[in-house]
Amino acid sequence: MKRVGLIVAYDGTNYCGWQTQPNGITVQGELNRCLSELLGTEIETIGASRTDAGVHAMGNVAVFDTDSRIPGEKFSYALNQRLPEDIRIQLSEEVEPDFHPRYCDSEKTYEYRILNRRFPVPTERLYSYFYHYPLDVEKMQEATSYLIGRHDFASFCGAKAQVKSTIRIVTGIDVFREGDMITIRVSGRGFLYNMVRIISGTLIEIGAGQYPPEKMKEILDAKNREAAGPTAPACGLTLMGIEFL
Amino acid sequence: MKRVGLIVAYDGTNYCGWQTQPNGITVQGELNRCLSELLGTEIETIGASRTDAGVHAMGNVAVFDTDSRIPGEKFSYALNQRLPEDIRIQLSEEVEPDFHPRYCDSEKTYEYRILNRRFPVPTERLYSYFYHYPLDVEKMQEATSYLIGRHDFASFCGAKAQVKSTIRIVTGIDVFREGDMITIRVSGRGFLYNMVRIISGTLIEIGAGQYPPEKMKEILDAKNREAAGPTAPACGLTLMGIEFL
Repeated sequence: MKRVGLIVAYDGTNYCGWQTQPNGITVQGELNRCLSELLGTEIETIGASRTDAGVHAMGNVAVFDTDSRIPGEKFSYALNQRLPEDIRIQLSEEVEPDFHPRYCDSEKTYEYRILNRRFPVPTERLYSYFYHYPLDVEKMQEATSYLIGRHDFASFCGAKAQVKSTIRIVTGIDVFREGDMITIRVSGRGFLYNMVRIISGTLIEIGAGQYPPEKMKEILDAKNREAAGPTAPACGLTLMGIEFL
Repeated sequence: MKRVGLIVAYDGTNYCGWQTQPNGITVQGELNRCLSELLGTEIETIGASRTDAGVHAMGNVAVFDTDSRIPGEKFSYALNQRLPEDIRIQLSEEVEPDFHPRYCDSEKTYEYRILNRRFPVPTERLYSYFYHYPLDVEKMQEATSYLIGRHDFASFCGAKAQVKSTIRIVTGIDVFREGDMITIRVSGRGFLYNMVRIISGTLIEIGAGQYPPEKMKEILDAKNREAAGPTAPACGLTLMGIEFL
């Protein structure tokens, strides 16, 4: 028996998120189905990040156990031939048998993309959030400074979450503009439910001038979801990668 | 009566090209339908470029005539509320009554995007051509030098074309890489049917080392479609813009 790790990229547009569910097609469901077909036995993957419906990934991570004689690094090719074209394995390799992508310490990096211009661009509509009103990237960048480090992020935790602690560590957060596209890049040691989308929704309000950058500290200190801005739409969010520490 | 000009952006994935046709949904067909609904009378647009099925645009141009009292610059907003989300007007304005987007002299700019890496990226699959084998951008760039200027581009003309002359002027052509994405940017005074896609298919063969860059001159001189490389897939091509001279 060996454990195989996969780096999984997907366009989340047509999926009800990562996690297998009885009603609705999910990325994990498609992955389990293709692996089970390939290996002729029921395979259940374990995923690192249960991304929401409509969220994309460049580098989610999953593992599964098999006694197949297929070498670990060959699974990428075999799976990509079976998977729908909006899911593509980027790397497969044998990992330690006790490696668990959710229980091992890791740093995840997300990007939230905002298309900030007068009219939407059709070819960007599935992978960014269109926002018409001009945004001040410097103010957004200034507001991020309050979020770096270890904090209670209760204000940035979606209502559906059931967690013991809302304390998390944000290791880096950057906001930059390339042409009409503004990217919010956030890295951290674990995230709360909808945390990046609520941070992004709040940064958009600050960038639009509804609040000054210092308001971010107040919001953080409130430890109350109602203090923060709206949850930005799923299509703008991409899980870029996960580094295991 | 006034003539209104539109700059039209679209994701060509789900369209049978620009031009209205009896069977199949087209960009022009959607535009005519929305304009006719808006104005309560049958409107026929005239388009600058009849892009093929699956080809995208950031800046195609169309005009229509109307005696509506809606100011030219307001049509962008009114149309964007009615159009499907994969078509978006970028600008509308009143133009000279004799302005014809196909008969006026113009320079068009196209980009052909090639995703050149080991495995496909799902979120790029609709807007680029995935090519796995490593491409040498410098060799591709070298090969483009033979194409600049006024030439008989018969070797780069699709079979369906019925044109009097295959002489065209390429004013600029550039090949550059950003990360895994290679872009071929071509500007010219009019293009033959499939010309940019055949140039791109030929440049890919040269980049892959199948032919040396100098082969491009031979191909051009042959004035024979069979001398050139394959027609690269539609999804990689975007009409970036049209400048009227």
